[in-house]
Amino acid sequence: MKSINVGMIGYKFMGKAHSHAYKDLPLFFPNTVKPVMKVICGRNEQDVAQAQAQFGWDEYTTDWKSLLQRDDIDLIDINAPSDVHKEITIAAAKAGKHVFCEKPLALTLADAREMLATVEESGVKHMVGFNYRFAPAVMLAKKLVDEGKLGKIHHFRAWFLQDWLVDPNFPLAWRLKKEIAGSGSHGDLGAHLIDLAHYLVGDMTEVIGMSETFVKERPIPANMSGLSATGSESDEKGEVTVDDATLFLARFENGALGSFEATRYAAGHRCTNSFEINGSKGSVIFDFERMNELQVYFTDDRDDVQGFRRVLATDPAHAFADNWWPPGHTIGYEHTFIHEVVELMNAFKEDRQPVPNFHDGVKCQQVLEAVDQSIEKRQWITISDI
Amino acid sequence: MKSINVGMIGYKFMGKAHSHAYKDLPLFFPNTVKPVMKVICGRNEQDVAQAQAQFGWDEYTTDWKSLLQRDDIDLIDINAPSDVHKEITIAAAKAGKHVFCEKPLALTLADAREMLATVEESGVKHMVGFNYRFAPAVMLAKKLVDEGKLGKIHHFRAWFLQDWLVDPNFPLAWRLKKEIAGSGSHGDLGAHLIDLAHYLVGDMTEVIGMSETFVKERPIPANMSGLSATGSESDEKGEVTVDDATLFLARFENGALGSFEATRYAAGHRCTNSFEINGSKGSVIFDFERMNELQVYFTDDRDDVQGFRRVLATDPAHAFADNWWPPGHTIGYEHTFIHEVVELMNAFKEDRQPVPNFHDGVKCQQVLEAVDQSIEKRQWITISDI
Amino acid sequence: MKSINVGMIGYKFMGKAHSHAYKDLPLFFPNTVKPVMKVICGRNEQDVAQAQAQFGWDEYTTDWKSLLQRDDIDLIDINAPSDVHKEITIAAAKAGKHVFCEKPLALTLADAREMLATVEESGVKHMVGFNYRFAPAVMLAKKLVDEGKLGKIHHFRAWFLQDWLVDPNFPLAWRLKKEIAGSGSHGDLGAHLIDLAHYLVGDMTEVIGMSETFVKERPIPANMSGLSATGSESDEKGEVTVDDATLFLARFENGALGSFEATRYAAGHRCTNSFEINGSKGSVIFDFERMNELQVYFTDDRDDVQGFRRVLATDPAHAFADNWWPPGHTIGYEHTFIHEVVELMNAFKEDRQPVPNFHDGVKCQQVLEAVDQSIEKRQWITISDI
Amino acid sequence: MKSINVGMIGYKFMGKAHSHAYKDLPLFFPNTVKPVMKVICGRNEQDVAQAQAQFGWDEYTTDWKSLLQRDDIDLIDINAPSDVHKEITIAAAKAGKHVFCEKPLALTLADAREMLATVEESGVKHMVGFNYRFAPAVMLAKKLVDEGKLGKIHHFRAWFLQDWLVDPNFPLAWRLKKEIAGSGSHGDLGAHLIDLAHYLVGDMTEVIGMSETFVKERPIPANMSGLSATGSESDEKGEVTVDDATLFLARFENGALGSFEATRYAAGHRCTNSFEINGSKGSVIFDFERMNELQVYFTDDRDDVQGFRRVLATDPAHAFADNWWPPGHTIGYEHTFIHEVVELMNAFKEDRQPVPNFHDGVKCQQVLEAVDQSIEKRQWITISDI
Repeated sequence: MKSINVGMIGYKFMGKAHSHAYKDLPLFFPNTVKPVMKVICGRNEQDVAQAQAQFGWDEYTTDWKSLLQRDDIDLIDINAPSDVHKEITIAAAKAGKHVFCEKPLALTLADAREMLATVEESGVKHMVGFNYRFAPAVMLAKKLVDEGKLGKIHHFRAWFLQDWLVDPNFPLAWRLKKEIAGSGSHGDLGAHLIDLAHYLVGDMTEVIGMSETFVKERPIPANMSGLSATGSESDEKGEVTVDDATLFLARFENGALGSFEATRYAAGHRCTNSFEINGSKGSVIFDFERMNELQVYFTDDRDDVQGFRRVLATDPAHAFADNWWPPGHTIGYEHTFIHEVVELMNAFKEDRQPVPNFHDGVKCQQVLEAVDQSIEKRQWITISDI
Repeated sequence: MKSINVGMIGYKFMGKAHSHAYKDLPLFFPNTVKPVMKVICGRNEQDVAQAQAQFGWDEYTTDWKSLLQRDDIDLIDINAPSDVHKEITIAAAKAGKHVFCEKPLALTLADAREMLATVEESGVKHMVGFNYRFAPAVMLAKKLVDEGKLGKIHHFRAWFLQDWLVDPNFPLAWRLKKEIAGSGSHGDLGAHLIDLAHYLVGDMTEVIGMSETFVKERPIPANMSGLSATGSESDEKGEVTVDDATLFLARFENGALGSFEATRYAAGHRCTNSFEINGSKGSVIFDFERMNELQVYFTDDRDDVQGFRRVLATDPAHAFADNWWPPGHTIGYEHTFIHEVVELMNAFKEDRQPVPNFHDGVKCQQVLEAVDQSIEKRQWITISDI
Repeated sequence: MKSINVGMIGYKFMGKAHSHAYKDLPLFFPNTVKPVMKVICGRNEQDVAQAQAQFGWDEYTTDWKSLLQRDDIDLIDINAPSDVHKEITIAAAKAGKHVFCEKPLALTLADAREMLATVEESGVKHMVGFNYRFAPAVMLAKKLVDEGKLGKIHHFRAWFLQDWLVDPNFPLAWRLKKEIAGSGSHGDLGAHLIDLAHYLVGDMTEVIGMSETFVKERPIPANMSGLSATGSESDEKGEVTVDDATLFLARFENGALGSFEATRYAAGHRCTNSFEINGSKGSVIFDFERMNELQVYFTDDRDDVQGFRRVLATDPAHAFADNWWPPGHTIGYEHTFIHEVVELMNAFKEDRQPVPNFHDGVKCQQVLEAVDQSIEKRQWITISDI
Repeated sequence: MKSINVGMIGYKFMGKAHSHAYKDLPLFFPNTVKPVMKVICGRNEQDVAQAQAQFGWDEYTTDWKSLLQRDDIDLIDINAPSDVHKEITIAAAKAGKHVFCEKPLALTLADAREMLATVEESGVKHMVGFNYRFAPAVMLAKKLVDEGKLGKIHHFRAWFLQDWLVDPNFPLAWRLKKEIAGSGSHGDLGAHLIDLAHYLVGDMTEVIGMSETFVKERPIPANMSGLSATGSESDEKGEVTVDDATLFLARFENGALGSFEATRYAAGHRCTNSFEINGSKGSVIFDFERMNELQVYFTDDRDDVQGFRRVLATDPAHAFADNWWPPGHTIGYEHTFIHEVVELMNAFKEDRQPVPNFHDGVKCQQVLEAVDQSIEKRQWITISDI
């Protein structure tokens, strides 16, 4: 197999990120399967036509179902809003198409499980878009954990801090409506933290959380795109139906203690997606705002030169780095998507499931839902009970 | 009143810190009441005699009760282990002596309340040793909060990370025995975080926590002093009866969400006593390992130059700074105690209660105990129920 | 004008960076002129054919002169080694082709001036590849300077620190041969610092420098590509004929003092391209390893909250940022080239010379050569005397 | 020898720092010789009497010569303004008194050499106050250099940046008058950098510098003390006769290249006394504003975890740290003076010359003067020619 033909549904924030990944991949990763940008699909014809031209797709359509009937489409990429993930995934898998679906997989755990069952039955490849796994600095953390360089893990703490909702006049974007987004900071930001926890530390056994919606009503926007919103002439307000912030505590199967916080109200933090792992032999700290760096500490360094090392994960020794630029020449947010698609293409090349896939998506959804239940019931929830 | 005669009970880590504070105060703060180092008291005569000479006290004694009968002692400073705080405080207050007691006030909330009631009845001045309030950078945070420069507070997160227990062969110090220390990381480190939360954000309404003792047994030491331990020749091990790490979530009366973590297992963190406050108009971040600095962010900075400012709290505009050195010439850990004693001496000068006092100590103990209950009962605990 | 047809000469490190810029530009900057990737040219047919396929060019050739005779080529992009810049530029300009040339323009100031004269006479557009100007954080610095927010400039200090030559067994790459590279750290790294000084502070009046070649001989490599080298089986060594490090002091026309350092021997610094400006009203600090950030200080901040702000130049208020991702989602090294090409395409759109152009290239070369003279003559050199 | 009786001349900024050092030393360093605070001396009787009481000296006097005639004075501590260092030192040494003199030793190299000759002839102990050597983090750098952990040194760069003169209305303090201070930023700040260079890297062979006085005239103050100035009612201005900023390049005997910058015009830098050393096996970075930290890099770390380590020099493995607080509990500016006096007292205990002593003072003065000459003559100056 030399190439994979892609049909993509969605063309906003994630659609742009995915398109760019497909476009750039062959330049920097010529030795894997090549994604071919066949068709982009969206509901608004004018917008999707514009996206097709700008992003470099061969064709556009407003009828996503048409993609499933074409023989020249191998892979369906779903990055439309979360409420349509399920329907499209199931139809695509049943049509024998491979599926690459943005996170969160679905609005509910039940839906996510149904999606997983379907893709498994259909025998297609499936991937879920936890792109932060693919920052080379995060992959270095994973490597150190796997090698035992951090020893037994005692603590995992993670916080995803944004501040785009601090202004109470920021409009009521679709991400603030439960029926479309499914969840607020918890499903949007917390989902990434949970996936990183699974990736780096392992499964959790129990959780307890709390959440808050600080601003209950917001102006209804005239027009929304991605995270940004333009012009809200009317004074009309609508209810915010998702959480502004969700925190939870967790225990891991390996005995580690976990602390998680996701919020869109942390003034000064544009996109602080951060975690720290403390083990018996060392620690690591990551902050996405400095995504090329990993802070690394080892307890067995000579006693007078112990300290967190600021490792710039741009050396040949680091994942993917050799495909980019010389050491010290950093990469950015969009590169996580390119690496993600490299993993997907390598899965085709090696005929295996990509990672993370729908199993990871379901596992993440399970924790999200356990936390939701723990908030509702005001008690600890055992993950395996969900 | 020109001077106050001090009798101090305890001569280890805190005894050294307090002695130094009394000694240095007149040099840098000549315009307040002067503490006179009269008598130091300890159980081991050889050690306390050595401390008396080294620290610069006029006399020593091994009989703390004798201090209460002397007319030339105005203030009893208690920094002996936590299990004797109560007895000494109550006797001192009844003897009409002012009391300056290290944190935590007592082993239980009931004891702490009894202590408070006694000092209040006796009409003496009382102070509790939450020294971290007195870092100028922390006082700047308080000032900004009080002025409304951070707006409405949404988040308070605090973590006190140390790593001196990561080595499982570190000996069983007194701080690891519940009957002496009362608590582990929670009472030792968490207590400081809770006090800072009260100082900076206000009262909490409910909490839920979790804790862990990662290493259950440790070698019994031949000799212990402060945090350090010397030589453990025997292979004998004893049980660790306190928590190694305690985390909890909290809600504040003003609607803010709180996250707290205290641990002695965070490899690489020698003394990361840190907090962050996010409000509707700004944020601040503090880390005791860089105690002269406060990171400050304002939402109303011009849109292209918004960012956390690294403020070095050593300018004349900062608390206490003018008494020290020119701007940029930093101070250290011990200065928090000098400032604390300045507050105590000012309270004498102005004939008022110092702050923080036993009310703050009780409030802290109340939260500590609520968290303990929440861990035991595995449910949210309402603070006012305690 | 809707599009520009490009013929590019060179296909290594810079060839990849430029190709990627042309490829990505239409996706993120759809509203400017579109560069069309027509022909890539190189000496080694096998390699250039591979580059053509991988980078996405329509055709390849090994005969650069053939590009000048084609009507369907508008722009010649020269990123081959420095020793061929002059010949190609002059031929291209005489053929009426626009020229985009990597820095340094030429091996000597005389050559650079001849190139400038030729492009000016020919009336073509000309640009020189000082890509670091195009980091949004650098552009923010420029904006603050231009607005007077930093006041009168007192100091400019700049240091470009790399460490790829610390290992004495690193092979004798072409960048270490004077006849090909023209210069070592001075022309490679120092040139960028000088250009940034011109951009941000203005012209210099006099300079004095010193330089050193720490390792005089290095193994002759079997094969070299970009900065990396593969396999050096032979024990044969060759002479390093360029500087390993060059430092110089400078005075600016506006009275500011300058300090410059370029080295490839700063262990631990992969690519610390950094500068600081101190003015009477404020300061800025930039470090390319954290290229999304600018540290900004203002003297007129309230006296208790003065401090360097860590500004993440990813907000809509920052140059180019709106074409990328939401705030806090960082970009990387390669984006400087995309922005550079945006400027070039905008120059076509608006029918003006792009900036920086050959005037800037000559000015940079003039300072480089003045520094060289100052080293040779061991005395201050007046720039206008060169 | 158990104790040394001190007579101190000077009672402003440095007088306070030295007094505090003498006072605190016995508490934290009980095992060395004890300094006894006998007499403090100053010209203004009211001020010196106040200082005597506040700082804790037994007596005061306004007649410094009287100290030399007393048998109960062993050591003369000179921290009065630089213009009186020479006269007092020479008289003290001739009277058989040991001398501890603040830097810079004298206004001229000739004077400094005469002072050195006199103390050597007199056989007294002599020390010069380069206190920054005594930050534990700086001592760690020295240790790593001496052990060869950094390999062959290629680069030393140092910058001492302050900003107290950025305001043109800051008054004409004595430090801005050549006849009293001898020099401006060069002698005040640059002297510290030069001493650190000698301590850490070794002797220099040649230098070339430049300097500037940005603001030529300043208001004459009503009253000055230390760095601060109070009230300048008059509009009268006086000439600034020292340098505001001085930069220079240097070569070291061991082949390293040096870059030095001292300025009082670096807005935002209260006291950035910083250096970096790059060697063939590693690098270190120090910044006095974070004086407890040393950034340390080793080239032989595993290739995927190379990076600057932030070492907090507060562990038992670090110089002096065990005499202070547990790891992570930082110290401040004043502690450098305590450590300096510990070295002085240890020299008495071990009957040897303390380090740094007048040899170091002279060597520093030699470089200062070489730089001054290089500025005047606009050419490189060979150190050994001075």
